[in-house]
Amino acid sequence: MVLYAGRHLHLLRTTSGWEYAHRPQARGIVAVLALTDDRRVLLTEQYRPPVRARVIELPAGLAGDIPLMEDEPLVTAARRELREETGYTAREFIKLMSGPSSAGMSTEIITLFQATGLTKVGEGGGDGSENIRVHAIPVRELRAWCREREEEGLLVDFKIHAALQLAVETAGGRRLWQ
Amino acid sequence: MVLYAGRHLHLLRTTSGWEYAHRPQARGIVAVLALTDDRRVLLTEQYRPPVRARVIELPAGLAGDIPLMEDEPLVTAARRELREETGYTAREFIKLMSGPSSAGMSTEIITLFQATGLTKVGEGGGDGSENIRVHAIPVRELRAWCREREEEGLLVDFKIHAALQLAVETAGGRRLWQ
Repeated sequence: MVLYAGRHLHLLRTTSGWEYAHRPQARGIVAVLALTDDRRVLLTEQYRPPVRARVIELPAGLAGDIPLMEDEPLVTAARRELREETGYTAREFIKLMSGPSSAGMSTEIITLFQATGLTKVGEGGGDGSENIRVHAIPVRELRAWCREREEEGLLVDFKIHAALQLAVETAGGRRLWQ
Repeated sequence: MVLYAGRHLHLLRTTSGWEYAHRPQARGIVAVLALTDDRRVLLTEQYRPPVRARVIELPAGLAGDIPLMEDEPLVTAARRELREETGYTAREFIKLMSGPSSAGMSTEIITLFQATGLTKVGEGGGDGSENIRVHAIPVRELRAWCREREEEGLLVDFKIHAALQLAVETAGGRRLWQ
């Protein structure tokens, strides 16, 4: 049953008493491990009110939350979010995995894509309500770079590391993530 | 402001209108990448009502949610959860990272530990209300094994892959995660 219907988030309870959060508008969430030809990973930095901190994340967003685009395929949403947030388009999208972000407390399932063949076509920064800074970090330096951001008080999303672990070799056969 | 105060989960809204979920009782969440001497990773399998599926996860749980143990240090909670859920104790715990599981919708911050020097001292299975199955999967087979579970309709938590990516070499110098 719905305990409270917020505008963007609902709080629900199962008959056995388990409470959890649910986003009613979204069909899914997508996140993108975008790898440039010179072996950099595109990351976003933005303030996240729930954790009261700037957070380093993969470009990501909701699928199906735009009126008249409720049936938007996940890969289309991934392409749109990558473009909106980073200003890059990609030639190839590969689905890496779908999984829950916090299976004990929300219905959120995130689908992770790897994008390659990138071209910069705009500035990125988000859809206007967002205030996103974009970073292009060499894969080899990513871990140290994330640790430095943490030392500065920023938070780093786990999915960055998960995506690197899951990244697959591209047709060229180079292990892009090492 | 609190929009709704559930028993375990609150729904809140910032002054700018951002809605998010918060667990009032927990001081933090811990998850453990437990690596056995014969290079296996301990994983849990349990039904998760929010996503209506059995989910493969790292041993994990709340810190500070037990009455009179509200000040429980995170590493103590990690040790307790590992023991409760898998039946193993560990000689060494190393903190790998703290990060948000879903920075856009909840306050949840998860602290990830690596545990080595494992000894089996019990059966695990959780605290009674939980019904947890334990798997010990060779690190090299982990990815294929997770994919097989997904094909069976189970879900896999991203933090398993993130933890493997973050895993550090132990004193012995072996790269346990490869």
